[in-house]
Amino acid sequence: MSLLAIDLGGTRLRAAWYDESRRQLARAETKTRADEGPDAVIERVIATGHQVVPAGEAPSAIGMSTPGPMDARRGVILHSFALPGWQDVPLASIVSQAFGGAPTFAENDGNVGPLAEYHLGAGRGANPMIYMTISTGIGGGVIIDGKLFTGWSGHAAEPGHMQFNDDQGQVRRLEELASGTALARLAMEKLATWPGETSLRDVQDIDGAMVGRAAQAGDALALSVVQTAGRYLGLALVNLLHLFSPQAVVVGGSVTQLGDLIFGPARAVITERVLDPAFVPPNFIRQAQLGDDVCLIGAALYAQQRRDAID
Amino acid sequence: MSLLAIDLGGTRLRAAWYDESRRQLARAETKTRADEGPDAVIERVIATGHQVVPAGEAPSAIGMSTPGPMDARRGVILHSFALPGWQDVPLASIVSQAFGGAPTFAENDGNVGPLAEYHLGAGRGANPMIYMTISTGIGGGVIIDGKLFTGWSGHAAEPGHMQFNDDQGQVRRLEELASGTALARLAMEKLATWPGETSLRDVQDIDGAMVGRAAQAGDALALSVVQTAGRYLGLALVNLLHLFSPQAVVVGGSVTQLGDLIFGPARAVITERVLDPAFVPPNFIRQAQLGDDVCLIGAALYAQQRRDAID
Repeated sequence: MSLLAIDLGGTRLRAAWYDESRRQLARAETKTRADEGPDAVIERVIATGHQVVPAGEAPSAIGMSTPGPMDARRGVILHSFALPGWQDVPLASIVSQAFGGAPTFAENDGNVGPLAEYHLGAGRGANPMIYMTISTGIGGGVIIDGKLFTGWSGHAAEPGHMQFNDDQGQVRRLEELASGTALARLAMEKLATWPGETSLRDVQDIDGAMVGRAAQAGDALALSVVQTAGRYLGLALVNLLHLFSPQAVVVGGSVTQLGDLIFGPARAVITERVLDPAFVPPNFIRQAQLGDDVCLIGAALYAQQRRDAID
Repeated sequence: MSLLAIDLGGTRLRAAWYDESRRQLARAETKTRADEGPDAVIERVIATGHQVVPAGEAPSAIGMSTPGPMDARRGVILHSFALPGWQDVPLASIVSQAFGGAPTFAENDGNVGPLAEYHLGAGRGANPMIYMTISTGIGGGVIIDGKLFTGWSGHAAEPGHMQFNDDQGQVRRLEELASGTALARLAMEKLATWPGETSLRDVQDIDGAMVGRAAQAGDALALSVVQTAGRYLGLALVNLLHLFSPQAVVVGGSVTQLGDLIFGPARAVITERVLDPAFVPPNFIRQAQLGDDVCLIGAALYAQQRRDAID
């Protein structure tokens, strides 16, 4: 069975053609140009797909990775912050028709990413496995017994939407406390009262990447910000350990490149606050391995699993 | 296959005999007398079991419900707040030997309770189903695809150990914020600065039941305490919805008798803070139905599932 995989991201659009052994035989990539609206983007999705399907062949199944919440059972994108103007778009059936009616399965990127890392990346064989991608926001998903776990609604698991009070007593989502966006906000808050030197003073439009680079260069304010975010991340990991008792938490995304600067404080909170050391597997926090193609590979695996479940 | 079920609680010890259709044919109950130590309690467990096994018969399997963390794979109670002096006690193998070597499976009460409510109680058919028992502490467990979910360590899920900052910025476990014990603590904290009338002023040794009764009688301080606890419970439920997307959360234990006094504020927080209404099934908070025998029934079901997995 030959698979067409499509990764529709808010910025990049990728397609690949896989043979039955999941070897990638062709790959294409372009810009999404989300600002051009649904019709233009859907046309581009189909054209990019056609670029990788060999002449005279048709996919036996199509897997798609999409940004934001969707109804995976019907293949409908409900809405998406990354795709302005999309509302209840039946993407799977449109794409299916464009490729000879091939069965088409679409799921959001936070859910196909974990499948890829579980089968071919850093989470191989871990049960349960949790995946978290920490960049502008925090996405993720859970694999139980080798299968994507999405719960009753089909929308679980959303680790970035775990909520707790911050140090100021305001209830916030994890992605408001430990993402790249959060690093920038925390830096601006700390700057207001920071007494010492810092390379971030008087900088316009501070973003998470700037805070990360400053922390790596030893800037005290930036280090303090990353430590605060790391402690919130640690509290979230304590909750995930108590609720799912994962064998591995695979982490990817730009913020995780900070390594021990952010995971050191997270591990300290885990040691302080976990109910029992038996909940904490050795080296359970693992860096994701599949890089930019994680959602493309995940989309192919997702199509394969959904297809096999039907056969 | 005839089953012997034993519910070893910190206060009460129960045993029952079930036929292959899970009909209860005999039942016995006594006090645990945990203060007499492991040897005396184990002797009492075996004697109570023998009371319900018909003369000339032997159980084909034994299921046990135990208090506190255990190694369910080996049937060893690691330690228990409810059973002082117990440390690494191989309870399952001791009980097995006392009943002719019958395969014996033991699991903690927070995990066998959900099995019973899933198969025979308020959570019938709900997938996933979460069970929370809210009394002195908060215990619970998760059923996924009809099976008890315990994760890599075998110790998941512990909803009572979810942690977040309280309104004073201190990190606390849910069971420190919404259990009966928490109601008492919150009442004592509020009393210190409470300006108005309250039936709880000058009361010695306030406990959760007193706060509950005062709230039901309309006492303003007690109502405010129950509302605070309800809001923390709501925040925990938001996190459970985002992580597990359960079809039902079955709640039992003395505190849940407060009904809308505590679940009203919890529901308000859910409505305020859930990512998408699609995560919230209609009437997903359900009162447990099986009462005092929930762990006895759960122990029988647990033995049956473990036994079936071996056959």
